[in-house]
Amino acid sequence: MIIVLRPDATNKQVNHIVEKVKKLGLKPWVSKGVERTIIGVIGEEDVLRIQPLEAYPGVEKVLEVLKPYKLASRDFKKEDTVIDIGGGIKIGGRKIVVMAGPCSVENEKLLISIAQKVKAAGATVLRGGAFKPRTSPYAFQGLGLKGLKFLAKAKKETGLKIVTEIMDVRDIDLLVKYADIIQIGARNMQNFNLLKEVGKVRKPVLLKRGMSNTVKELLMSAEYVLAGGNFNVMLCERGIRTFEDATRFTFDVNAIPVLKGLTHLPVIADPSHATGKWGLVTPCSKAAIAAGADGLIVEVHPSPEDAMSDGEQSLLPKNFAKMMDEVRVIARAVGREL
Amino acid sequence: MIIVLRPDATNKQVNHIVEKVKKLGLKPWVSKGVERTIIGVIGEEDVLRIQPLEAYPGVEKVLEVLKPYKLASRDFKKEDTVIDIGGGIKIGGRKIVVMAGPCSVENEKLLISIAQKVKAAGATVLRGGAFKPRTSPYAFQGLGLKGLKFLAKAKKETGLKIVTEIMDVRDIDLLVKYADIIQIGARNMQNFNLLKEVGKVRKPVLLKRGMSNTVKELLMSAEYVLAGGNFNVMLCERGIRTFEDATRFTFDVNAIPVLKGLTHLPVIADPSHATGKWGLVTPCSKAAIAAGADGLIVEVHPSPEDAMSDGEQSLLPKNFAKMMDEVRVIARAVGREL
Amino acid sequence: MIIVLRPDATNKQVNHIVEKVKKLGLKPWVSKGVERTIIGVIGEEDVLRIQPLEAYPGVEKVLEVLKPYKLASRDFKKEDTVIDIGGGIKIGGRKIVVMAGPCSVENEKLLISIAQKVKAAGATVLRGGAFKPRTSPYAFQGLGLKGLKFLAKAKKETGLKIVTEIMDVRDIDLLVKYADIIQIGARNMQNFNLLKEVGKVRKPVLLKRGMSNTVKELLMSAEYVLAGGNFNVMLCERGIRTFEDATRFTFDVNAIPVLKGLTHLPVIADPSHATGKWGLVTPCSKAAIAAGADGLIVEVHPSPEDAMSDGEQSLLPKNFAKMMDEVRVIARAVGREL
Amino acid sequence: MIIVLRPDATNKQVNHIVEKVKKLGLKPWVSKGVERTIIGVIGEEDVLRIQPLEAYPGVEKVLEVLKPYKLASRDFKKEDTVIDIGGGIKIGGRKIVVMAGPCSVENEKLLISIAQKVKAAGATVLRGGAFKPRTSPYAFQGLGLKGLKFLAKAKKETGLKIVTEIMDVRDIDLLVKYADIIQIGARNMQNFNLLKEVGKVRKPVLLKRGMSNTVKELLMSAEYVLAGGNFNVMLCERGIRTFEDATRFTFDVNAIPVLKGLTHLPVIADPSHATGKWGLVTPCSKAAIAAGADGLIVEVHPSPEDAMSDGEQSLLPKNFAKMMDEVRVIARAVGREL
Repeated sequence: MIIVLRPDATNKQVNHIVEKVKKLGLKPWVSKGVERTIIGVIGEEDVLRIQPLEAYPGVEKVLEVLKPYKLASRDFKKEDTVIDIGGGIKIGGRKIVVMAGPCSVENEKLLISIAQKVKAAGATVLRGGAFKPRTSPYAFQGLGLKGLKFLAKAKKETGLKIVTEIMDVRDIDLLVKYADIIQIGARNMQNFNLLKEVGKVRKPVLLKRGMSNTVKELLMSAEYVLAGGNFNVMLCERGIRTFEDATRFTFDVNAIPVLKGLTHLPVIADPSHATGKWGLVTPCSKAAIAAGADGLIVEVHPSPEDAMSDGEQSLLPKNFAKMMDEVRVIARAVGREL
Repeated sequence: MIIVLRPDATNKQVNHIVEKVKKLGLKPWVSKGVERTIIGVIGEEDVLRIQPLEAYPGVEKVLEVLKPYKLASRDFKKEDTVIDIGGGIKIGGRKIVVMAGPCSVENEKLLISIAQKVKAAGATVLRGGAFKPRTSPYAFQGLGLKGLKFLAKAKKETGLKIVTEIMDVRDIDLLVKYADIIQIGARNMQNFNLLKEVGKVRKPVLLKRGMSNTVKELLMSAEYVLAGGNFNVMLCERGIRTFEDATRFTFDVNAIPVLKGLTHLPVIADPSHATGKWGLVTPCSKAAIAAGADGLIVEVHPSPEDAMSDGEQSLLPKNFAKMMDEVRVIARAVGREL
Repeated sequence: MIIVLRPDATNKQVNHIVEKVKKLGLKPWVSKGVERTIIGVIGEEDVLRIQPLEAYPGVEKVLEVLKPYKLASRDFKKEDTVIDIGGGIKIGGRKIVVMAGPCSVENEKLLISIAQKVKAAGATVLRGGAFKPRTSPYAFQGLGLKGLKFLAKAKKETGLKIVTEIMDVRDIDLLVKYADIIQIGARNMQNFNLLKEVGKVRKPVLLKRGMSNTVKELLMSAEYVLAGGNFNVMLCERGIRTFEDATRFTFDVNAIPVLKGLTHLPVIADPSHATGKWGLVTPCSKAAIAAGADGLIVEVHPSPEDAMSDGEQSLLPKNFAKMMDEVRVIARAVGREL
Repeated sequence: MIIVLRPDATNKQVNHIVEKVKKLGLKPWVSKGVERTIIGVIGEEDVLRIQPLEAYPGVEKVLEVLKPYKLASRDFKKEDTVIDIGGGIKIGGRKIVVMAGPCSVENEKLLISIAQKVKAAGATVLRGGAFKPRTSPYAFQGLGLKGLKFLAKAKKETGLKIVTEIMDVRDIDLLVKYADIIQIGARNMQNFNLLKEVGKVRKPVLLKRGMSNTVKELLMSAEYVLAGGNFNVMLCERGIRTFEDATRFTFDVNAIPVLKGLTHLPVIADPSHATGKWGLVTPCSKAAIAAGADGLIVEVHPSPEDAMSDGEQSLLPKNFAKMMDEVRVIARAVGREL
């Protein structure tokens, strides 16, 4: 940590900070320049983070040297984490994993029919929400337990693994029972109690980036789960909020290679939410795989105009199959397989 | 709702939409222009919202006419909502309410001392977090129940009312017991299960705007609480995330008169989080009151450099007292009292 | 255009608007719903745009139906525009065009050496700034005319075409003389006088998206050039400004398919500015081509640590050659050639 | 400047950087921590800025210690700059200056009539655009020289000073002749050639913040003008672009005290552009003055619905007069005068 002092900082202020640093068991070094004095701190920065350094008299700003996350960092673990979700499906390895299905689980028959179609096109995981975070209290809120049971049925029929969202800490047992991957939605990326709860179990977790959270904050949230002992975490880029309104969100494709550099955890892309328009899902998916993503999570619905949520961004099964064909070629072009 | 069709939309597509609209019990009118055909829909838009209109073949875009919130709207209730939190303190009336105290509750003695000082300066509500949402799993997470008990003690000693944050649906009973105002933090503004939970009780709720949420989304989240039957909701502008990095967040002062126009609910400003720097808290507070805010929530700590969180944005008690003097003059200048 | 009235709009206010619309030679239709009255306007919206409709008494908001650009729109011209810059190089067709070179022109020998290397790797256009927009008045401002002459020399030696930036309306003749493509930089995207100036000539123009401009505004700026009679316009996505600070800008990969849908003009990607880090240029380039871009513009420098600008985002020639190999495979995977 | 190395940086890389720093005449100090080696550089950072430090092998990131602007900084000049625009009007002193008038100059009679009204209400400077930056090439582009002449006429009639915008470097002589304050619009804040041009003259300059530019970049642009020798620069906060769409821009009220702390230059607020809605202009003006602004620039039009631009954000003269009354009370409340 580097503490930059104001031009008018007094010797007394400098000494005060130096003493505080020493008391914390750290080693300060002081460097007096022409315009500014700087205090560098060597050692475990975490001890200092709980001290609001910018509140010290004489301090102008504090510059961070080390990363605030540890377990999620590639410095901590060099090799890619590969998550085995059973049935021979591994996420984070050479093979690209595609999760597909409706936004919300609506009824059993429809769900099974979609499951069969996305499986035929090459998906290995079925997505579908039983608990739905909706902006409006008057919108469809999901089928709850009934929805989870439909997912179980679809799993039995097709052999697809299940990814579905948790919204409430009280539902953790249900989710552990029914899901192969527990999804933390974008709006809950900093619901720290929920993160702690999924950190206590050992189920794989798909952690979505909040729509206004930085890559660093995403890694800090992953750190919550890892610190709980659950190392089966995959991250998901799903678009961030910007001034651009031609699309629902701005897909931050840069974040994919950035994350692959900073962390050993697998990175999934969600082109459906990242664009908000079905016509953009295929180019966005291709871009994600070209940039190094380990998988995709895509919304598919046979009759988008009747979908109870997110119809405007859902692909028809036949368009999903086409998308898979196009993505497969890109996967090969980057030395991977779908 | 106005449905704008593509230039190449077919008659069949137009008819298909018209039929759907009629089936929902609404009245469509079709207007064929030179370049585009438009379908207007008269009636309750809510029925249509669950239909993903943009997924219909031939549709270019859908323009919303009505507001998606009802109970929170000034169309629904013309007069300002005034919330009585007891002890003669009313929020939303002529008198500006100031809530002040430490970011986190740290220990009993310190808390009572701060409480006495902010009371002396004119605050009527004590703020202090017992459950703390922290970006890092390694940072101080709050004292929990112990913290709530310290708040109760401070209340008993000073007569100040208590505002404190809920983070977990399972804590609702505790919060109802210890808080006079339950705070929903920015990161939980779209934690819909938590909103439903505070909607079931009748305690006043301070709902903070998410750092990347629009005013409309804030009103939609308030709608969740109101729809549950709890009408004691006050909104809080606490800064939004932008590209500017000279401050921690950008205080959206525009949002204050915008909200006062759209809703009958009281509007509070949080200059501590909105700036992230104690030196900016006073000018920001004055701006908020000048723009029409009904109250302030401010962080105060006697030794910011030792605070366990948010020290860099906490005012010393003596600076808080000065701030109150300056804000008092502004309050009078806008025909109100502090 | 749809004019939505306030719930309390009077008949007099409605009639006032209806009269105004008729006077402009347009046809209004009035639709009275339960909650709101709506006035639709059929005909050329442009006439109305100069009228500030939201200022009319009784108006709540105005919803736009038609696009504000015409010549840039695919509605105006269905087929892709292909720009012939001479020497058999066409931009916007099946072949991906790569422009590469240093950020700034620094000296003749270095420039020619870079030109030879990027040519060997497959680039057909040489980039290099003679006039440099720099945030600081104390930073290197470019060599000016001398730089243009070095570019001419490099062109003569290698046969590469030249793309270079115009910053000042007074330099238009120079640019027409020395450039094969005139670049309008991001900071000048809404320098309307400069746009008019390049609209008067017939040189191809590379128009960069402003770092905080929407896709619609980019098309409006292109419209300025097209309206001047210069149809040789290519658009360039170069990253937008967001809250994310892990990269210099956020590459808006969504914008590529969005633009390809809305306009007939070619779309180029600038992965160097869009990421700000040389290690991200290759994945970003691959994503851009996978998403449908027609070309790339990339910064290359043999000794980035000595570059007078943008060294941190410049590729070494050998890394550029590697990038080209990887991009070539992606180009083939989307049915194109490099 | 602090150079943070990667964990795997070699001694050779460290030495390479140390040598480079020494060659530039600066003093490096090296500090080896457990996890990272850090190189600090003491002396004039500017010499180093032209070196792209992040491009050096082994470098992880570079942290800036000093501010990149000098002349604009309060470190350079402690006392507030007060700009005398003649006629006893001083900007930056105890008295708040209000500039008001139409967005565009439309015709002589109307302009004079507005001038008389805003003067009567207390404005001392008349605003009005003769050259108009418009997003659409089809929108009204301003009257040009004719508009400047109307402004001169209005000045003669009322004694008001004139502020009007420059868009083209070729118009500098005209502006010097007709304007008392030359305005640089938001879209030209980083039109560096235009900044250099107004730096060469001695007319006061009103420099508007770009809609997506940081406070630091605003100060860097001011530095361009100051470095040219023109010290009569006032800065203008006019709203920034964010995700919020309830207002046209987000007024960054924080920027006012931030700027007053960082620079000695006067700070003006533009509530018309910062909100985009006339109903918000008064509360926004009051907030600006409460936060410490030195003046306001406000759009006024007697018939907003007929205004050729910005009608939706223009105040009627009678509402402007009311606004002045309310702002006057706030000015007094902060120890100033209007």
